This record gives sequence, C-alpha cells and structure tokens, in this order.
Amino acid sequence: MIIDCHGHYTTAPGAHQKFRDAQIAALKDPTAPAAKPGAISDDEIRETIEKNQLRLQQQRGSDLTLFSPRASAMGHHLGTEAISSAWTRANNDLIKRVVDLYPENFVGVCQLPQSPGVPIAHSVAELERCVRELDFVGCNLNPDPSGGHWTSAPLTDRHWYPFYEKLVELDVPAMIHVSASCNPNFHATGAHYINADTTAFMQFIEGDLFGDFPTLRFIIPHGGGAVPYHWGRYRGLADMLKRPALEEHVMKNVFFDTCVYHQPGIDLLVRVIDIGNILFGSEMVGAVRGIDPHTGHYFDDTRRYIDALSLAAAEKQRIYEKNARRVFPRLDALLKARGL
Amino acid sequence: MIIDCHGHYTTAPGAHQKFRDAQIAALKDPTAPAAKPGAISDDEIRETIEKNQLRLQQQRGSDLTLFSPRASAMGHHLGTEAISSAWTRANNDLIKRVVDLYPENFVGVCQLPQSPGVPIAHSVAELERCVRELDFVGCNLNPDPSGGHWTSAPLTDRHWYPFYEKLVELDVPAMIHVSASCNPNFHATGAHYINADTTAFMQFIEGDLFGDFPTLRFIIPHGGGAVPYHWGRYRGLADMLKRPALEEHVMKNVFFDTCVYHQPGIDLLVRVIDIGNILFGSEMVGAVRGIDPHTGHYFDDTRRYIDALSLAAAEKQRIYEKNARRVFPRLDALLKARGL
Repeated sequence: MIIDCHGHYTTAPGAHQKFRDAQIAALKDPTAPAAKPGAISDDEIRETIEKNQLRLQQQRGSDLTLFSPRASAMGHHLGTEAISSAWTRANNDLIKRVVDLYPENFVGVCQLPQSPGVPIAHSVAELERCVRELDFVGCNLNPDPSGGHWTSAPLTDRHWYPFYEKLVELDVPAMIHVSASCNPNFHATGAHYINADTTAFMQFIEGDLFGDFPTLRFIIPHGGGAVPYHWGRYRGLADMLKRPALEEHVMKNVFFDTCVYHQPGIDLLVRVIDIGNILFGSEMVGAVRGIDPHTGHYFDDTRRYIDALSLAAAEKQRIYEKNARRVFPRLDALLKARGL
Repeated sequence: MIIDCHGHYTTAPGAHQKFRDAQIAALKDPTAPAAKPGAISDDEIRETIEKNQLRLQQQRGSDLTLFSPRASAMGHHLGTEAISSAWTRANNDLIKRVVDLYPENFVGVCQLPQSPGVPIAHSVAELERCVRELDFVGCNLNPDPSGGHWTSAPLTDRHWYPFYEKLVELDVPAMIHVSASCNPNFHATGAHYINADTTAFMQFIEGDLFGDFPTLRFIIPHGGGAVPYHWGRYRGLADMLKRPALEEHVMKNVFFDTCVYHQPGIDLLVRVIDIGNILFGSEMVGAVRGIDPHTGHYFDDTRRYIDALSLAAAEKQRIYEKNARRVFPRLDALLKARGL
C-alpha cells in the first residue's frame, strides 16, 4: 500500500474561491454583508478530483492521500480571526466531502484558523472538531501566520503549548506548513516553504520541546527544507549548542516527506536520514506541475524516485506505508478497521 | 593552488569587539561620546591569525583565503547608518592589516556600510575605497540589513542597481551574505544564513537581473542554501514561471561555495551543479567549529570532501582555483602579478 502523506485540494471548485474572494473584498468594505460559502455540488467535487488528484493517484500507483486544504490559500495573514475561522471551516468541510466521496482514496488533514497575534489556543476547537467529528487524522500547523514577516514566537515557545497538549491528547501529528507569502522577498513555494521547513528544524535543535512532549510528532515537508543537504551543519550546530545528538534530540519526533523533485535529492535524503523518519509524499497537484525535460516525467511524480532507490522492498514499504501508519495512528486505526 | 573563497575574521582581537560594544552601549546613551576603534598591535593580529585561520590553512593544505570581516558581527540592523559606517570601516581596515601581514595567505573582501532603509547607493563609496585603495577583490552584500525582518526590496529590485553598476564597473563579485538575526525565529547560522541563500536564488529566478547586468556575478554561500537539494523544484519553478532554463537564466552569473559540512552534501552539490559554478570554500573558523564524530575530522574541513570526490584532477582544480580566479578577476590579476 502506498500512502501519500502530503496532498492539498489545489483544484477546488470555483465557488470555493469565489467565497474567498468575497471575504477578501469585504475587508475593504465594512458595509458589505459577511461572505458566505457558495453551493458546491458533489458533481463539481467529483470533476475536480477525478480529473486531477484521483487520476494522478491511479496513474502513478499510489493508493491513498492524506488530503488537506490548499496550503498557499490558507492565507492566515488576511483579515481577522473571524475571517480565518470561516474560511478554515469551509475548507475543512470541503475536504470532508472529498473524503466521503472517495473514502478509499483520501483521508482528511485539517487547516487551522490561525491569525497573526491570536493565541494558538484558539485553534484547538477546530482541530478537535476535525479529528473527533470529521475523522481527520492530522493537521497543518503554520509557524508563520503573518505570511512571511515571522512575527510569531518560535515553535518551541510556550505560546504553542496548549495546541501541542491537544495534539498529544488526540494522538495526531502536525505537518509544519506555511501559507502564501505577503513579503515580496519570499516566493511562496520557492523560498517561504523551504525556509520555514529549515527554520522549524533549527528551532527544534535550539529548544527542548520533545523533552516536554515526548510523543509529539511533526512532519517537516518538502524533504525537510535544506536540512538533509546540510545534515553535517545541523549535527555540528547541535554539538556546539551542547544539545544531544539529533537522533535523540529531534528525530524521535520529526519526520520528513519525500517532496523533493529530482532523483539526486531523494538519493541524498535516504542516504543521510534514517528510513524510519521518511514518509512518502508528493504534494501533487502542487507547487511544481510540469514535466521534467531530463526525465520525461512529472517533477512531482516522487514515486519514481523512491522506486529507483537501491533499497530492499521492506525498506521502501516503510517509506510508502509503515512510517505513515506509525506517525498517524488514527490513519492506522481507520485502515485496520477496513481490514487493511 | 587552493583558494578558499569564504573566510571571515571571526577571531579578531578583543579591542575590536570592545569598540563595537562601546558603539552599541552608546545607542542607549546619547550623551556618551562617539566610540572610537581601539589600538590593536600587529602582534595581536598575528596571534589571532596564526593560532587560527593560518594554522588551519596550513594544516588543511589550502593556500589562500578570501578574507572578510566576521559576517555575524556586521550587524547592519544595529544603530544608525553612521554607526554602521564607522564599524564597517574599522572592520575593513582590520582586514587590510591582516592582508598586509600575510599577503600570500589572505586577500581582502569587504563588508558594506548597509543600514535598514538606507539606499544601497550609500555603500558604493566604501566598496570603491576597498577595491581601489585597499586592493580588495570582492564584497559581502547583505540582502536583509534588518537582521531577519526582511524589510528590504528583493535583490532584483532597482533599489540595488546603483550598487550593481559599481560592481560591474570594478569587475568584482559579491557574496550574498546576511548577518546576525534579531528575529527569534531564525537562528543565525542554522536558519537565517541558509534561508537567505535560498531566498536570493529564488529572487533571481523570478526576476531578470542578469538580462540587465550580464556580467554581474554573485556567490551564494553555504553550498547555495537549499537550492542544490531542491534542484528539481527550482528547474520546475523556472519552467512554471516561463523563465529560461536555469543554466541560461541564472547560472551564468551565480556560483555556489562548498560550505556544506558532510560528504553526502558535497556529493549532491557536484552531482547537480555544473563544476564551473562551484568555488571551494570552508568558512573556517566559522559557524560549525567541532569535530564530526562520524569522521574524526572537523566538520568545516571541506577540502576532505572535495578530495574524496571521484572527479578528475583537472575538475577539482576548477573548484579549488580556476573558478575563483574567473569569478574574482582582480584576484587573478594579483596572482598573475606574482607569477602565480
């Protein structure tokens, strides 16, 4: 079984974006009535999924995608907490509808109603709703709701603890995933995403978060940002900061996905990072949608890179399935209940 | 000949830091007299260099280091433009003294008197002084003088053009190098440095800077940040943004150093990046000062990783010497004048 731990609904029906556009337009016109989610039919959902993520899932031979709202559209920096909450709820409800239409192909992961300067504790209720009522198995946590201005406290700060307590209680992991950038220095998918991944990892080295939360689990997407390429730097910095070795200090709790869009990158990832810390992911249809002229295949068809590794089948199965079932225990329970 | 393109005077004598401390203390006390650089004897310089950079140069078998002021201490975000100017001048003058004491071992690269919100054109005079009067061969350009708040325009913005015009006129390259971070999210050497490298590269993809300045040259340090590891992502993003292939669009003007502190990272670098774009660098004595327990050698002894590559000697010589002489023509001229 092949589980893709990183997929977003980047192809949601037009009415969904229309709702968002109306929300944003209303920010400039306080007399406008509050925007409301428009009607979306099951057929519209089917069309956007079957032509895109489901088609590619089948073409590429993966079985199930952990599916969350479009990351770049979370836009936590836009508007107020109320705006973020309404948009988040609409997004998560839409994911739930996808999952209900294709329960064998998609399992839900939620967006959070974060907003700059708002305590993360305010996101606990939506997490709980998504996990307990909608059967979602994880969430995307934005370490920078300001969208590229980085005005929040580091992820190791006690500010975030009420949320971590709930993650631990529910036994769900968080993928650390920023959204769009409103800082012109940072291209969203080419700089902000990768920088956030790198930043989060270094915060974990500096702090002792997993001393306080030994069972807390994070996925750092996009192959861990710059971290595996600079693994020597991070091992060396941990040493200079008098922290334990990374295997003990961070890597019992942090996992990297395989959203690295060329063979040499994936080769490096499995060379330096323990197989137990690598989860298959593609983020399709996502940041990079084209075909690599060097290979003739989609850049984000990451299964090809894993298949090409000279690893034993059992090791590949850890990347494809077993690690995900361990990191997402609610996914494992759900699959076991289906006899899988 | 082995040229290390990336070394900082991280071990400057105490009086130098004392001057900086006095500058910073005076920020809080406007009645305090302006701080002035303290006296530093040649013997003090000799001691700090011979025990550190020169000793390691000899131990590791490199010949010459392009030497610039300590990057993390540039601190452009601290105080006013006048403070930054005085500190920058003292730093560059100190580098000149090192070079004069050890002309065969060190060649100067300057810091710039950048300050948040101040036009980069104000840095032209110090660049010109260092190149024309002090015989420096390059400079370090900080893309984020705010120290982790990223309040400047992207490097492709016309704001930077007056400085680029001078770089082109003098025929010197710039290493893109941030300084310390005053944003608690970003550890300086573990996040801010690497993020800045990645950010700059993506800015170059988005823009068309080298259309305007075909001979402008940048070194992106720390192995190009996350870029080589995500080379497929960047090739794919260039394609999505309808830019030419990276080889044409960016890589005629951008070079990566080898400050990647483990063998697998260096292996990846030379696998995906053209040898002509790689300059030997170690950044010693710098961010990571310890010994790698896996190898028994210093993390930043990057020569070992290059030596271990299965590359022809002529290819290694490009990394060690020839590329640097091409990217730094004033270095080449200086070496040729010495019969080297």
